[in-house]
Amino acid sequence: MTIKSVAIIGLGLLGGSVGLATMEHAPDITARGYDRDPQVREKAAARGIVGKVCDTIGAAVSDADLVILCVPVGAMEAAASELASHLKQGAIVSDVGSSKESVGKALSRALPGHTVIPAHPVAGTEQSGPEAGFASLFTNRWCILTPPEHADEAAVKTLSEYWTKLGAKIEIMDAKHHDVVLAVTSHIPHLIAYTIVGTASDLEEVTRSEVIKYSAGGFRDFTRIAASDPVMWRDVFLNNKEAVLEVLGRFSEDLSSLQRAIRSGDGETLHDLFSRTRKIRREVIEQGQDDGRPDFGRKDHS
Amino acid sequence: MTIKSVAIIGLGLLGGSVGLATMEHAPDITARGYDRDPQVREKAAARGIVGKVCDTIGAAVSDADLVILCVPVGAMEAAASELASHLKQGAIVSDVGSSKESVGKALSRALPGHTVIPAHPVAGTEQSGPEAGFASLFTNRWCILTPPEHADEAAVKTLSEYWTKLGAKIEIMDAKHHDVVLAVTSHIPHLIAYTIVGTASDLEEVTRSEVIKYSAGGFRDFTRIAASDPVMWRDVFLNNKEAVLEVLGRFSEDLSSLQRAIRSGDGETLHDLFSRTRKIRREVIEQGQDDGRPDFGRKDHS
Repeated sequence: MTIKSVAIIGLGLLGGSVGLATMEHAPDITARGYDRDPQVREKAAARGIVGKVCDTIGAAVSDADLVILCVPVGAMEAAASELASHLKQGAIVSDVGSSKESVGKALSRALPGHTVIPAHPVAGTEQSGPEAGFASLFTNRWCILTPPEHADEAAVKTLSEYWTKLGAKIEIMDAKHHDVVLAVTSHIPHLIAYTIVGTASDLEEVTRSEVIKYSAGGFRDFTRIAASDPVMWRDVFLNNKEAVLEVLGRFSEDLSSLQRAIRSGDGETLHDLFSRTRKIRREVIEQGQDDGRPDFGRKDHS
Repeated sequence: MTIKSVAIIGLGLLGGSVGLATMEHAPDITARGYDRDPQVREKAAARGIVGKVCDTIGAAVSDADLVILCVPVGAMEAAASELASHLKQGAIVSDVGSSKESVGKALSRALPGHTVIPAHPVAGTEQSGPEAGFASLFTNRWCILTPPEHADEAAVKTLSEYWTKLGAKIEIMDAKHHDVVLAVTSHIPHLIAYTIVGTASDLEEVTRSEVIKYSAGGFRDFTRIAASDPVMWRDVFLNNKEAVLEVLGRFSEDLSSLQRAIRSGDGETLHDLFSRTRKIRREVIEQGQDDGRPDFGRKDHS
């Protein structure tokens, strides 16, 4: 099975990056795109983030061997229902959503009889919209495929090859397990960042101006993550409720025990944890998952 | 009052940066340094992070107009007691500690009759040791001075001018207020980062290897902060207990209310918060407190 044409539905940061990466790394594949927002379509066309921006979802998908849904996870089912009748025989439908069990079910419901292989490239930035995408977003990042039971192996292979061309490394995983792993490595970090930025701006004793001025003490890192797309993240939390609440429970327990250590002056517990976490950072850098320069190599230190 | 000679006690990231910044931005000031660890002294001398590395604390401070303690906040009082008898008449003693009320009291206890002006440059990286410092660490960062009541105004002015030369912007603040502000913008962000990195590495359902592989979903940001110096941070939490526990209480309340929103499927509460926090990021960037490029301009996206 060879992909000659891909349709990208939703032309924000992810959709735009898939389009740009396809044109750069797989120029033999035709990329069409659609977004339900006419302004986004216009900007996407002006930037040339896909070969052709279509005015209807049907025109975008009718010739596609692969359709990739790049909409918020709460909008997946509606988008899939809308395009279902336009799909070419044998087309693969996939997505880039950050929660996989609920999306897998939603796509299967909306597309009975079609080949659905959910996927999640673990990549992104805090920016969003058609201006934000770039061709190297997936380079050296993992793309997790969560094929349903009895999925067509050839389709899984084809989708894997496509993502490999875009620069990603492939992992196949059970959807339920994906959702726990990503709750830890992505969803809870975002929830915590949103929370602390909210807490800081609501305090009466500390002004908003002070929070901004002294943010270089650590807080500014959290503001970056807390600038991520509100609709996308609302949908992630509502669609990965079970795993998010489970990991959040563990986090809260651990935080309570540090709170107790601080209250009782137990420096040893603090020092033990703080020494352990240092090693994780080293591994993240060694495995090419982050910029190893101090402070991510931020510009203000150059 | 003119500073002709500065003594830097403790030659890690902060002490080294103060030394390098002094030599680069205030070359008319002689910089001597001391660290109680002979290996650190050796490395500091090899790198030339101060004009002269001394083998005793007395030799470092005896000629100094300004002494800056750059040791963990829990070690301030002992270091100050050790150098007290060697201080030149009229010398100013300051520090760079991240908590100010306890440090102010400790320095006053150890140095009766001397001029003590505590300070805190809000700057740093996750790295530590004499190899980690650099001359531009304080450029465009705020340095908060917390002079005690009835402090010598000329000394406050002299210290302010010194930090201004090093590139910092000056703010004068009450020590107690400083400690609440920094609990929000620095201490709690570090505590949360340490906690989530610990939680992630302790989970049974998710392997350490998975946590590392998929860390680009947000988690990797937290690993940077959680790689910060364990002794420094243990001391900060033990020395700013009251403000840390107060802000932590607010954070936990806010997190519980988001937890409830997720459990009950209340997307509106989530969306409202996530939209609000976005604005804070914009202000942080507009006020020059962070690199505005996507993802801090990390190298893997270039």
